[in-house]
Amino acid sequence: MTKIITVSREFGSGGRELGKRLADALGFAYYDREIVTALAQQTGMEESYLENQLEKDSIVRYPIHFAQSFSQLSTISDTTIQLKAMQTKLIKSIATRGNCVIVGRAADSILEEYDPFCLFVYADQDSKLARCRSRVAAGENLTDRDIIRQMKRIDRSRAEYHDIISSRVWGQKESYHLCINTTDTEIKTVIPAIAAYYNAWLLGR
Amino acid sequence: MTKIITVSREFGSGGRELGKRLADALGFAYYDREIVTALAQQTGMEESYLENQLEKDSIVRYPIHFAQSFSQLSTISDTTIQLKAMQTKLIKSIATRGNCVIVGRAADSILEEYDPFCLFVYADQDSKLARCRSRVAAGENLTDRDIIRQMKRIDRSRAEYHDIISSRVWGQKESYHLCINTTDTEIKTVIPAIAAYYNAWLLGR
Repeated sequence: MTKIITVSREFGSGGRELGKRLADALGFAYYDREIVTALAQQTGMEESYLENQLEKDSIVRYPIHFAQSFSQLSTISDTTIQLKAMQTKLIKSIATRGNCVIVGRAADSILEEYDPFCLFVYADQDSKLARCRSRVAAGENLTDRDIIRQMKRIDRSRAEYHDIISSRVWGQKESYHLCINTTDTEIKTVIPAIAAYYNAWLLGR
Repeated sequence: MTKIITVSREFGSGGRELGKRLADALGFAYYDREIVTALAQQTGMEESYLENQLEKDSIVRYPIHFAQSFSQLSTISDTTIQLKAMQTKLIKSIATRGNCVIVGRAADSILEEYDPFCLFVYADQDSKLARCRSRVAAGENLTDRDIIRQMKRIDRSRAEYHDIISSRVWGQKESYHLCINTTDTEIKTVIPAIAAYYNAWLLGR
């Protein structure tokens, strides 16, 4: 069976870098933005628009006194729901192609039948803030508070999307095989150890 | 400075085995029951009595309508508090002796000034139950429910002791550098990878 590693991560923790480096170390394919690119090709939509739609909460919360029917409710977020369904299908098809590392997108739950090795990558707030700050474009005038708010918003959205389609809780250690704190850690230095851990874990299956 | 690794763990997750094997792999000293043995030598008390006292909640909870004074309250758990203070002193003295792995006993907080590498070892309930069951003496008639209740009680006691003397929360991934889920994992196979992770982490200090 195809070997799958999923990387769930807090925004700014370096999970994407860790996933890419781990895939390279193991000779596995790597999927992250590649999924959005493939969706863009399928739908003819812009990648930036797709990213935005896919990050939206799957369930739109309307004040209860609106009292709209469920059918109306589902219409509101129709595009998002359709795109997420397409993404899920795409992730399942990726899994049939060969060994891979998939970052985010609730792949740990979508690909549960493949018995994936599930990583969670996190870091303390200062560390995540520093990582984000180093990537803010020169022209953007964002305060630390703006960035932290944005980080939290994205993590909340990831957690909500994950927990809708999974019985396991996003970010809770029990949902993962290994949880890695990247605070004050140079990611590339720990990759061989993570690859070795994965190979040892695999032997026990 | 002395290199310290602390292993916090859920009861039944194999944290003790992991700590011992990791210490052997790194050539570090290993402390767990050794601390109780040393305390027994210092106090002339039985090890089993000491274990029992040290596992008790540090703060005895009395119904509020007893309305006893704080001085009375502290007398109630005097032995436990004194023994825990002795244990803390002992752990601090151990840290000066050389590189070591210390299992439990809130060593991650007691030795904070040494910048220890902090591991948390956990597993799912079935896995912990199986590990405990394999160690129950033949004559003991314990149901699964009894064992689970005992497991939870011990973890609760560990968490309470830890959180009294620490600003970090026991069992919460943010309090640790690496959290290892031992469910369906043969511990000895992952030791080289954990040792490699530790050595890489150390290089970044």
